[in-house]
Amino acid sequence: MAWEFFSIIGIMAFAISGAIVAMQEEYDIFGVYLLGIVTAFGGGAVRNLLIGVPVSALWEKEMLFQIALFSMTVLFLFPNGLLKHWYRWGNFFDAIGLSAFAIQGALFAVEYNLPISAAVVAAVLTGSGGGIIRDLLAGRKPTVLKHEIYAVWAALAGLLIGFEIVTKDLYLYLLFIVITVLRILSYMYKWRLPFKSLQGSQQ
Amino acid sequence: MAWEFFSIIGIMAFAISGAIVAMQEEYDIFGVYLLGIVTAFGGGAVRNLLIGVPVSALWEKEMLFQIALFSMTVLFLFPNGLLKHWYRWGNFFDAIGLSAFAIQGALFAVEYNLPISAAVVAAVLTGSGGGIIRDLLAGRKPTVLKHEIYAVWAALAGLLIGFEIVTKDLYLYLLFIVITVLRILSYMYKWRLPFKSLQGSQQ
Amino acid sequence: MAWEFFSIIGIMAFAISGAIVAMQEEYDIFGVYLLGIVTAFGGGAVRNLLIGVPVSALWEKEMLFQIALFSMTVLFLFPNGLLKHWYRWGNFFDAIGLSAFAIQGALFAVEYNLPISAAVVAAVLTGSGGGIIRDLLAGRKPTVLKHEIYAVWAALAGLLIGFEIVTKDLYLYLLFIVITVLRILSYMYKWRLPFKSLQGSQQ
Repeated sequence: MAWEFFSIIGIMAFAISGAIVAMQEEYDIFGVYLLGIVTAFGGGAVRNLLIGVPVSALWEKEMLFQIALFSMTVLFLFPNGLLKHWYRWGNFFDAIGLSAFAIQGALFAVEYNLPISAAVVAAVLTGSGGGIIRDLLAGRKPTVLKHEIYAVWAALAGLLIGFEIVTKDLYLYLLFIVITVLRILSYMYKWRLPFKSLQGSQQ
Repeated sequence: MAWEFFSIIGIMAFAISGAIVAMQEEYDIFGVYLLGIVTAFGGGAVRNLLIGVPVSALWEKEMLFQIALFSMTVLFLFPNGLLKHWYRWGNFFDAIGLSAFAIQGALFAVEYNLPISAAVVAAVLTGSGGGIIRDLLAGRKPTVLKHEIYAVWAALAGLLIGFEIVTKDLYLYLLFIVITVLRILSYMYKWRLPFKSLQGSQQ
Repeated sequence: MAWEFFSIIGIMAFAISGAIVAMQEEYDIFGVYLLGIVTAFGGGAVRNLLIGVPVSALWEKEMLFQIALFSMTVLFLFPNGLLKHWYRWGNFFDAIGLSAFAIQGALFAVEYNLPISAAVVAAVLTGSGGGIIRDLLAGRKPTVLKHEIYAVWAALAGLLIGFEIVTKDLYLYLLFIVITVLRILSYMYKWRLPFKSLQGSQQ
C-alpha cells in the first residue's frame, strides 16, 4: 500500500516538475510530455539497471504511465496567468518527488535483501536520477550536484530504511513528510554542506 | 527484408549525421568515428534496454558496424570544398535516420508482441535516441526537444505499425518516405506544435 | 592479480579525478563524493551494459567502493594550499585511470572470449566512459571528444590485448605505464589527430 502511494506521488510530482522545466525552456507540447515522462521514469530506470532488475519492469504498471500523462495534461491546460506564478512550485514538486522516490527506492532494495549500501545507493539514484536526466536534457547543470542540500536527504531515507529503523507504513508516511520538508527548508534557507572551492584553477 | 533495409539506411544516415556534427565541433578523426558510432547505435541501445532485450544483441550484426565505419570514412575523405556546402545535409541525414529507425523500432515491438504503447515508445526512442546522445555529447541542446516537429513523426509511425495498419513491406517503404518528407518539411517550413512558454520565470 | 591491480588503480585515479572536477565546479562535499563515485564506476557500468554482463556485478566487490570513498576523503582533507597547485594533477589522474581501465576492459573482453572488435570497444568505453559521464554531469564538453589524443591510446591497448600480443602480467604492467605516458605526452605537447573543421557551417 505504502509502495503504491509513493510510486504514484513520485510519478506525479516528477512528471509535473519535468513539464514545468520543459515549458521554461519553450519546448513544444511533445517536448513537455517527453521531458515529463523521462523525469518521472528516469530515476527508476537507472535504479533497476544498477540493481540488476530488468528495466522493462517499469512498463508493467501501465497505470503509472497514464497518471503521468494525466498530470501533465492538467498542467498544460492550466490557465497561463496562474501558471506564471507556478514557477516557484517547480522546486516544490521536485522535493515531493525526491522524497517519495528515495523511500520507494530504499524499500525496493530492502525487499530484494540487498545490503545497506545498496539501499542508500538505490534511494539516492531513484530520488535524484530522474531530475539529473531532466536537467541534462534541458541543458542545465544538475541541481543535485550544485545547489542546496539535496541528495543527502535521500541518503538519509536510505539509511533509516536500510537499517530497518523505519518499517511500518505509518512511519514511512511520516518519513516522507519529514524528508520533503527538510528539502524545502534546504532550498528556502539555502542550507549548504561544506564545500572546497578550486574554482579559478580550471585547466 | 524490410527490416534489414531500414537498419542499414538508419545506421548509414545516423553515422553520417553524427560525423557531420563532430566535424562542426572540430573533433579529431577519432572523435568523428566515435560520435558517428554512438549516434548510429545509441537509439537501438536505449530501446533494447527499455524493452528488455540484451543491449549486447546490437553487436551480433558486425556488418552494420562495418557499414557505419565505411560511411564515415567516405565522408571524412570527401573534398572539403564540397563538404562546406554539405552542412544543410546534416538535417537531411538526420531525417532519414529518424524515419528508418522509428519504423524499425516499431516493427521490433510488434515482433515481440508488445502493446501499442510500447510500439510508440520504441519508435520514438529508436528514432530519436541516437540523436539525443549525439547532441548531449556535442554539448548541444537536443534537437528532438526544442525545434520543429520531430519525434511526433516517429510516434505516428509507431501508431500506424503498432495498430498493424501498415504491415506489408511495400507500405512500410512508403511510410518511410512519407515520414522522412514530413520531417524535412517540418524543418524547412518551421512547423511547430503548440507550446506554452514559461520563459523568464526561471528560478 | 594484474586484474585487481588495474581495478584498484583505476578506481582510485578516477575517483580523485571526479572529485577534483567537482571541487573546481564548487560542488559541496556530497557532490564531490557523488561525482567521484560516478566517474570511478561509470565506465565499468557502460561496458557491462554493452557487453551483456549485469551492471549489478559492479557492486559485488565492496572493497572497491571503500577504496574510492577513502581516496576522496584523503583528497577532501588535503590542505587547501597544496590543493590549489593540484589542478595540474587532474589530467594526471585521468591518464592513469584511462590506462588502467582500458587494459582492464580489454582483459574483460578476452576473458569472455569476445571478438577483437569487442576488446577494442570495451577498452575505449571502460577507459573513457567514466570521464564522459563526469564531464556531462559537470556541464563540460567531454575531453575524450575534443582535445589531444585520448581514447586512441585506449583503443591501442584494446588491440594489443585483443590480439593476445600482450598477455603476461609483467607486460600488462609495462603496457599500463606506456599508455599512461603516451596520454600524458599527448596532453603536454598537444598531440592531435588530423581533424576536418566544419566550424562556422553550423545550421
